[in-house]
Parts: sequence; structure tokens; C-alpha cells
Amino acid sequence: MFREKIKVLDCTIRDGGLINNHDFDHRFVREVYKALSAAGVDYMEIGYKNSKKLFSEKEFGAWKFCDDEAIKKVIDGIESNTKISVMVDVGRVDIDDVKPRKESPVGMIRVASYVKDIDKAIYLINHFAEKGYETTVNIMAISRALDNELNEALHQLEEESKAGVVYIVDSFGALYQESTEFLIKKAKSILKTKEVGIHAHNNQQLAFGNTIEAIIHDANYVDGTVYGLGRAAGNCPLELLIGFLKNPKFDIRPILDLISQEFIPLRKKLEWGYIIPYAITGMLDEHPKAAMELRSSSRKESYREFYDSLTASGLD
Amino acid sequence: MFREKIKVLDCTIRDGGLINNHDFDHRFVREVYKALSAAGVDYMEIGYKNSKKLFSEKEFGAWKFCDDEAIKKVIDGIESNTKISVMVDVGRVDIDDVKPRKESPVGMIRVASYVKDIDKAIYLINHFAEKGYETTVNIMAISRALDNELNEALHQLEEESKAGVVYIVDSFGALYQESTEFLIKKAKSILKTKEVGIHAHNNQQLAFGNTIEAIIHDANYVDGTVYGLGRAAGNCPLELLIGFLKNPKFDIRPILDLISQEFIPLRKKLEWGYIIPYAITGMLDEHPKAAMELRSSSRKESYREFYDSLTASGLD
Repeated sequence: MFREKIKVLDCTIRDGGLINNHDFDHRFVREVYKALSAAGVDYMEIGYKNSKKLFSEKEFGAWKFCDDEAIKKVIDGIESNTKISVMVDVGRVDIDDVKPRKESPVGMIRVASYVKDIDKAIYLINHFAEKGYETTVNIMAISRALDNELNEALHQLEEESKAGVVYIVDSFGALYQESTEFLIKKAKSILKTKEVGIHAHNNQQLAFGNTIEAIIHDANYVDGTVYGLGRAAGNCPLELLIGFLKNPKFDIRPILDLISQEFIPLRKKLEWGYIIPYAITGMLDEHPKAAMELRSSSRKESYREFYDSLTASGLD
Repeated sequence: MFREKIKVLDCTIRDGGLINNHDFDHRFVREVYKALSAAGVDYMEIGYKNSKKLFSEKEFGAWKFCDDEAIKKVIDGIESNTKISVMVDVGRVDIDDVKPRKESPVGMIRVASYVKDIDKAIYLINHFAEKGYETTVNIMAISRALDNELNEALHQLEEESKAGVVYIVDSFGALYQESTEFLIKKAKSILKTKEVGIHAHNNQQLAFGNTIEAIIHDANYVDGTVYGLGRAAGNCPLELLIGFLKNPKFDIRPILDLISQEFIPLRKKLEWGYIIPYAITGMLDEHPKAAMELRSSSRKESYREFYDSLTASGLD
């Protein structure tokens, strides 16, 4: 029997934006919104809410800033129960840019934070919650969090924050099922009044498997992206998630059409997915940055050399 | 701490042969053997032992038949602890083709069987075991096995067969972790004197995750293929498996070189991996045959139509 509490958030445009400077055109984003709405996906995360004082509109596309007007243009006239989400990075948002919920097309704000920035994240979350938004905190790079610091952060989130959901984020695609189970169980045991979510990266082809693992251990908020689009190896493929979940409100077919028509052509222009250098950074629990650099160099297929370069340097 | 009992079998050439009529050239197979040997992989499965009375050498390459002489040519002069395995399908082997173990370069024979053919499989296994080979039975299409029939087959294998290992084979890439756990636990509980293995297909990007799941529940024999090469969506990528296992005898680097030098070029000629029609047959627990036909037609990217064609026909 399906679990009605499970909510699916699609972050195709937001996470995919990390590989094209958030420069998806209006038509493409509208097609994605249309398909997600028809498929019954609960949330669509459309980009980041970044301060224009920190980033230039000349360098970045619309989804780096997510102005309410740009969002309205994309969703206008499409019948939908899919709520719009935007992501905020600690230290990069101008909170005055965020209008009260009632005046905005956005329904949810997700604050991405490292464990060390959790106090700043809580300040932002509570501010947005007071403006009327659903809020979450997404704890990034969790595979490298020290246990005592993570425990403290989770206790703070439970006791001091108004976030409705706390996400475990496997930024490096480094987690195996046993660690996913460990982290989700820990989060569930501390966050007694909140939901727990997972956002997985696919470096080792485990994004979907770890998402199922999180669901088994009672995570109710799960992220996916269409055809796995996302930084480096990408994310949990939304189509697999929809195929797995038994809730009859979901319909995979609009997603299949979207992939045929938009994502197969896109894959010829943008690179993401199972690519060995990303698998290597995943298994070594490293940020994919070095692998992304390799992929834009002439040494892009020199896997052994890349592996050796990451493992040779003793730190002590 | 690593589990010494875990044995890795690479079936790149055998499962990959299903997409090129087993026609890998001698040089390529030798490069694979060399890399697997240097990586410390326990077994290399090199093809099928099929009767030449049933299949023509004009239509199929050498690895459809696996003559001892062809194998010797490939492995000659390479320092190695990697044992050679061949697969046998029930009803397709001429048992007189199989010489006694001492006269052959083959160390292991794996008999692939559906649950319904288990009596025939046991006959073959016991015959090969008496000739001195290590033997396994690989139960195919396990996601569709009726529980009572599977139980009976497992009891027979325990009581009547000389097989050292019994593999759970997720032929359709349909299993999720919970069913993998269920099947491995069942097999372990009945097969008290044998080892249990897993061979997973990657339709839903779960081959690696399910292999880890099987390891967690004490499967000690695990299959992988280089860069996931194999029929349709392919298999559990060997490089991920080697990255995961902690046994210091394994070295991932020769596999990385092999992928760079041989498999990246090969991927331009052969198609396998995460492709939506294979994901669809996986989630519907269907044989990939229809999807393979679609991929060689002009409708290859018409995913929704394909999904509808598989789900529309009521059987009753």
C-alpha cells in the first residue's frame, strides 16, 4: 500500500542549473512545469534566490535569481497542484527580495546549509516561515559531517527552527545504503516534530537506491530530477521514483514525453550522468569539482591518472 | 572490515556477448583478462558453452561456444589468479564437449536455469561437478518465480545438487532492495551448505544497490561487468563494486585503464546502459526484448507510446 505522506520534489531546473549557469529558457522551463503538473509531482524547485548584489544578471540566467515575475510567466495558465519551491544558500540571499507568501508564486523555500552554518540557516528559515512559506533545511555534504556536530545541528533544528522538513543531502554521491539508513534513523530519532527528506547524487548509481532506502526508514520528502539531470553525475531520476511509488495520483507518462522531446536533445548539449571521474569522486567522498574540471580538459578520459591524482597526496 | 569470503565474478564478455552475438575479438578479450587479473578479480566468465549442433559458427562469435583452445589463446602467458568460468544454458549444451577439469582451462561452470527447469539443471551441475569443476546454478527471472516453486527448487538444490553456489538472477532489473533482501534471506535459510550469489541487471539503476543489499544479507558471490556492459541496460558496474569492497587484494586502477582505452570507444559502437525503454521494462517486470526491438526501430525515442503498448493489453 502506498504512503500518502510521501512528497516528491522535482529539482531539475534548480540542480540542472548548476551546469548551465541557470540559463534554461522560458519555453523549456514551462514544458517542465507542465509535465510535472500533469504527472502529479508535489513540488517543482525552479532555482536559487540569490542576491543580485552578489551575482550579475549578465553572467547568470533567470533561475539564479528566481524573480517572482519570471516564475509567474512560466506557470501562467497551466492547471496545476504542483507548488513552486526555491532554494536559498546561506550568505547569498537578500532577505528583502523575498515578499510575503501571499504576494508570491513561491510556496516553499529550502535553505541549503553545511552543518557549520546551521545557526545562520535557522535564522533564515524562521524569517521565511514568518513570511508564510513552507520551509526546509537541506544539510549539505552530510557524508563528511562529524557525528557530534551533526547531532547538535539536528537538535538545534528540532528545538529552534520552524522548518517543516530536514533533508539529508549526499552532495558527493558517497553514501551507501548502510550509511543512508544510519543518517535517516538518526534524523528521525532527533527530529520528532519534523519530516525528514533525502536529496541524493548519482555518482555511484546509488541515488535511486539510497532514496528507496531513506523511504524504507521513514523519510517522506524525496527529491528527483527528470532523466537525472543535475550537477556532475546528476540526481535520482524522477521517472524511476514515479515508477516505484504506488500512489495513484502519480502518472509517469507526461515525464516520459518530456524526456523524449526535451531531455534527449538536451543531453547532446549538456553532460551529466554516470561518467567515471564522477564515480571516482563519489567513491572517494570528494566534491565533484576536480572531476568537472577534468571533463572540460583534454585529459577527460584519463581515469587512472585522475584517480591517482586524488589518492596520491598524503595529508597527514 | 572486509569479508574475505566475498568472491567477485566478472561476466563482461559473457553478458556483453548477448548484444554482439558473442563476437568480441581475441585482442579485446585478452585485454579484459589482463585487466581483471591485475585487478585481483576472482573469476572471469568468458562466454557460453553451447552445442555447435544447435548454433552455427557462421552466425556467432567464439564466445558462444568457448572452445578450450580459444580460451587458451586468450589467457596464454598472462600472470593471473583469475579463474575462467563459462555459462551453460539448460538444453543447449552438448555435455561431451566438456572435458574433465584437469584437461581444460576452465575452472567453473555456471548453469543458468529457470525455476521450472531445476531438475535438468541439477543433472548438468552434478555431471560437471563429477568432472571436477566448481559449479553454480543461476536462477533466472527470479522476480517472476512463484514462491512455492522457488522454495521447492531451493530445497532440491540443497539436497540433490553438488552446486557450490546458487545465484539469484534479476534478469529483468525489476527488483527493489526489499525484494532482494527477501530473496537472499530465503535462499540463505534453505541453502545451509552452499553459498548464495547475486547477478543483477541495471534497468532501474539498482544493480549496484541490490548487489550491496545482497552482500548485507550474506551473499558472498557477486557479479559485475566492466562499465556495466551487458544485455539491454547492462549489469552491476564492476568498477563500482571494486570501489566498494574493502579487500586490499583488489585494485581498481587496471579497470579504469581498461574503460578509458577499450570501453569508451566500444560504447560508440554498442548500445547498453540507462535507456528509458529498459527502465520501463524493469519497472513493469518484463523481459527487455520488446525494448531492444524498439531501440532498433525508428520509434526508439517514443517512450510514452512504448509504455502504453506494454500496459494497455489486459490479460485477465
